[in-house]
Amino acid sequence: MPQFMDVHDGFVGVTEDQLAAAHQADLDVEAAEGVHFEKAWLDPKSGKVFCLSTGPSKEAVMRVHEKAGHPTHEVYELAVEV
Amino acid sequence: MPQFMDVHDGFVGVTEDQLAAAHQADLDVEAAEGVHFEKAWLDPKSGKVFCLSTGPSKEAVMRVHEKAGHPTHEVYELAVEV
Repeated sequence: MPQFMDVHDGFVGVTEDQLAAAHQADLDVEAAEGVHFEKAWLDPKSGKVFCLSTGPSKEAVMRVHEKAGHPTHEVYELAVEV
Repeated sequence: MPQFMDVHDGFVGVTEDQLAAAHQADLDVEAAEGVHFEKAWLDPKSGKVFCLSTGPSKEAVMRVHEKAGHPTHEVYELAVEV
């Protein structure tokens, strides 16, 4: 199953609980798209969030984020990992 | 130990062996800075690379990448992980 990293901006000052809630919103709707969000990391100073996921396509990952209320266009397929 | 994600551009078409060599170049010089590069992911179509590391500071992570020959200014401290 392909792996993806996606990037969000605008999460300045977001707390762990708030990030966990956003991540849960993904988990709640991901199954229908065959996507699984494995991990999310946040830098609350810059507001950057990185999400690591697996799924059938970039578009499926984007649809889950959209349904969960935090869309992003920055989704990269991680064809190589070391 | 703080955790960091850094982002590189310009790795379009890079192969797994080439990424592994770049990652090894980091591993070879990281100890002096107390940094460890845990993982690197590449999207060879867009040329984006994401590196996950631990270390004492953002600057230490940047110095290792510089010594290894692939500097980046995009380094984010991942204060929150879910």
